[in-house]
Amino acid sequence: MPKLEKSDLHGHIRAALDAEASTDVRTLVSDLHPADAANLLESIPPDQRHLVWDEVGLDVMGQILTEVSDGVRKDLVQAMDPQRLVSAVRELDIDDIADLIPDLPEEVIADVQLTVDQSARQNLDAVLSYPEDTAGGLMNVDTVTVREQLSLAVVLRYLRLRGELPEYTDKLFVVDRDNKLRGILFASTLLTSDAARRVRENMDDDPITFDPMDASEDVAAAFERYNLISAPVIDDTNTLLGRITIDDIVDVIRQEGEHTVMARAGVPEDEDLFAPATRTTKGRALWLGVNLVTAILASWVIAQFEESIEKLVALAVMMPIVASMGGNAGTQTLTVVIRGIGVGTITGSNAFRVLKKEFLVGGLNGIIWAIAVAAVATFWYHDYGLGLIVAIAMIINVIAAAVAGVLIPVFLDRAGIDPALASGVALTTITDVVGFLAVLGLAALFLL
Amino acid sequence: MPKLEKSDLHGHIRAALDAEASTDVRTLVSDLHPADAANLLESIPPDQRHLVWDEVGLDVMGQILTEVSDGVRKDLVQAMDPQRLVSAVRELDIDDIADLIPDLPEEVIADVQLTVDQSARQNLDAVLSYPEDTAGGLMNVDTVTVREQLSLAVVLRYLRLRGELPEYTDKLFVVDRDNKLRGILFASTLLTSDAARRVRENMDDDPITFDPMDASEDVAAAFERYNLISAPVIDDTNTLLGRITIDDIVDVIRQEGEHTVMARAGVPEDEDLFAPATRTTKGRALWLGVNLVTAILASWVIAQFEESIEKLVALAVMMPIVASMGGNAGTQTLTVVIRGIGVGTITGSNAFRVLKKEFLVGGLNGIIWAIAVAAVATFWYHDYGLGLIVAIAMIINVIAAAVAGVLIPVFLDRAGIDPALASGVALTTITDVVGFLAVLGLAALFLL
Repeated sequence: MPKLEKSDLHGHIRAALDAEASTDVRTLVSDLHPADAANLLESIPPDQRHLVWDEVGLDVMGQILTEVSDGVRKDLVQAMDPQRLVSAVRELDIDDIADLIPDLPEEVIADVQLTVDQSARQNLDAVLSYPEDTAGGLMNVDTVTVREQLSLAVVLRYLRLRGELPEYTDKLFVVDRDNKLRGILFASTLLTSDAARRVRENMDDDPITFDPMDASEDVAAAFERYNLISAPVIDDTNTLLGRITIDDIVDVIRQEGEHTVMARAGVPEDEDLFAPATRTTKGRALWLGVNLVTAILASWVIAQFEESIEKLVALAVMMPIVASMGGNAGTQTLTVVIRGIGVGTITGSNAFRVLKKEFLVGGLNGIIWAIAVAAVATFWYHDYGLGLIVAIAMIINVIAAAVAGVLIPVFLDRAGIDPALASGVALTTITDVVGFLAVLGLAALFLL
Repeated sequence: MPKLEKSDLHGHIRAALDAEASTDVRTLVSDLHPADAANLLESIPPDQRHLVWDEVGLDVMGQILTEVSDGVRKDLVQAMDPQRLVSAVRELDIDDIADLIPDLPEEVIADVQLTVDQSARQNLDAVLSYPEDTAGGLMNVDTVTVREQLSLAVVLRYLRLRGELPEYTDKLFVVDRDNKLRGILFASTLLTSDAARRVRENMDDDPITFDPMDASEDVAAAFERYNLISAPVIDDTNTLLGRITIDDIVDVIRQEGEHTVMARAGVPEDEDLFAPATRTTKGRALWLGVNLVTAILASWVIAQFEESIEKLVALAVMMPIVASMGGNAGTQTLTVVIRGIGVGTITGSNAFRVLKKEFLVGGLNGIIWAIAVAAVATFWYHDYGLGLIVAIAMIINVIAAAVAGVLIPVFLDRAGIDPALASGVALTTITDVVGFLAVLGLAALFLL
């Protein structure tokens, strides 16, 4: 019964690709679940990727396209015949088509819109009218609706006539003749209640609902908080527009986590592992350029003290330690604060408390590592004065790091800038500049 | 209908706490959803936290304890009367009790085990016998089971008699008299199929199942891949042990994301935002100590070239730029590779391809930034020789960074060490040492 032998299957396919055994590749690929096929396509270089893609059946192509990362999707879409692409895409759910649209060529979009039926086209237009990262962008239109005056027995009969239910149908939506939402009826209620009773008596008439413009991370938080599997999206006239399901929420949560990690390192989220080196270099260049500017700024500070370094070259040896410890301690604070802002435990009203606490932690850390680094300096150079200067510089820099680690993300967040993206560069600029300045400046003032 | 006014309510409660208006606090706290109460408790300092905790009803205390972060849970549990704690905990689901057990005092654990009923106690022992990060640790024992020879009509009658279903019951488990799993019956099938048919004809007899020792991240990946809401856990004799539900999977995915971010910065995952500064300092100290050792190592490299720096102090100005650019470029590679290992797109068989590609990216980046930094050096010091040395050092260091960025996480992963935890320190040690060594060594050889 275990269906988790993905890695074995991937291994066999990779081996068959390397051996250029195309018949084996075809047989093996046809066994892959779409999600596993997507994973495989991301883990092989473009030439092999296109070989595998040619073996994928038209019936699962659309689904695989929705599952692969943005970078790989672009690569596959570019290489595809437009007519095949239209056929692969138009069988998908409306919300999935909407997700793919930004990556499709214009002619394909027009063809897809022409070939889906009238109601699907209206639904597609509706979903496309909302930004991708909102409830409207997440929603699907496959709602099952019932009327409140019916008996549960009639609803059950209706469902039997209807046949299969859409995935994640844990509740039906109760609407009036104008499609206004009146409440929700849980599938489990249908299964456990007296069939003679009416929908009205068994429905929840105050369910959790979303507005199409709600931010997707707020929707995800509500799904977690209220243990939802699906939830209705309604407009401000209470009209049912669609529903959001837990699978899309899981994607949102997964992406939130990846976004933080990728953004902090300055890597584009849609980076294709096997894109040409030139494209990858280009995607990462801006970030490195920004970092170069900050590194030059820090070096400019050093350049102001060339005379001091000439007199006491030990300063050049000790200053990177002070800068580096500030950077590391500050990154710890930064990480905690960015997380707190993200999950909502740090807000404007308690940020000052966090600052006070991190200031204390910085002071304690500063003293501990000041002693350590003073010991190293004195041991290496037998110079108590140098040890003292470096120790004081360490305390100053670690405290500055703690303060910057709180203030930078709080201010960026307030300014509407994603703290995960910009905080790290700003922090290390401060800890480098303060670290170098403290060591060299104090030495120039008191030692030389 | 919107129930998302959490932040307003939190604001009011914080204001009431600051005003020491305990009646208001009581009224407001009673309106909080347990998840929101948990969030509030994490966002206020310990003294206020205990005031709020005293106002929380015994009926929701257990649930709130399962929702708060580890650090805050420890703080709350320590302050609680053991008898109250037992009452709060024993009403929870078995899997939730199992999750709390590690944080409870021994006497409380013994009392909880005594006061739950016989079958619950056996179930609790079963769940406790598996590590927390396995399918067994995630599972709950609230399965609804049916026999395969029954008709759907009989199953529906049984469910009506039974009343309410456990949350996330999208399927019933079909077992024989020895509790061996024979298949699963979807709730939607019950709703849409002819009631005269038998369970056997309508069940899926080859469902996705988990072994209690499956790693929780593999379980999460399977839930995502196969769009599961719940799934059975069976032992190697096919006996049904329990089921895993999507809410626990969402937690696993959320925690995976947080783990990567926190581990890379060296922050303990259970850190309490408002713990005493001494405890926080202690929790973060080991990481800073490790970083100090690596910083001293890099400085020791500088110390070997004190004479060169004395002759040409510009080297002390330029060397941090080369080290810093290596660190940043290497971190980009590292982030992509750690993600690839995590999601399974990088494996032993394609790691070499990734290495080749990142080597190329490193080479390209190296050349670009070598030109930039050579321009800076030449502009500042009007010394083409220095510019050339720094440029070559930059190319060497950025390529070394790219290679280290691939090899470090791959080797750590193969050695069974979490790449997120240790890769960053190892990388910056290499980029600092290589950066300093390249600038100073090349200058000593060719310039001075």
